[in-house]
Amino acid sequence: MNEIKKQFGKNVKLFRQKIGISQEALAEKSSLHRTYIGSVERGERNISLENIVHLASALGVTPEELLKGIK
Amino acid sequence: MNEIKKQFGKNVKLFRQKIGISQEALAEKSSLHRTYIGSVERGERNISLENIVHLASALGVTPEELLKGIK
Repeated sequence: MNEIKKQFGKNVKLFRQKIGISQEALAEKSSLHRTYIGSVERGERNISLENIVHLASALGVTPEELLKGIK
Repeated sequence: MNEIKKQFGKNVKLFRQKIGISQEALAEKSSLHRTYIGSVERGERNISLENIVHLASALGVTPEELLKGIK
């Protein structure tokens, strides 16, 4: 169960670092709070579908890509 | 915004019908409630990551496949 949230957080962090932006910048682009982004990346959040889509859009990837490696 | 939930619901229904099981059977397989499955398929739910993974597993698809067509 925790593995799901952890893998999602890793994916977000990886894509964020790939485009070279800070958590703060990602927060601004996705209209989510910086502390929320931090907790997502640490695997602490059971994020909702709509927020998955917001994050994907801000990262320039598809929502599917954000779920890679999650089983 | 509503489009996201609607497309997700369509995907769930499509995969469920593909394997020929009822909402009730899917509810049992995924440990979710039948009325919840119904509302997801109607696009009424901003479903969580963990429940996306439960549904995907019960449908025999990857979580990524359940997000197909969502942008």
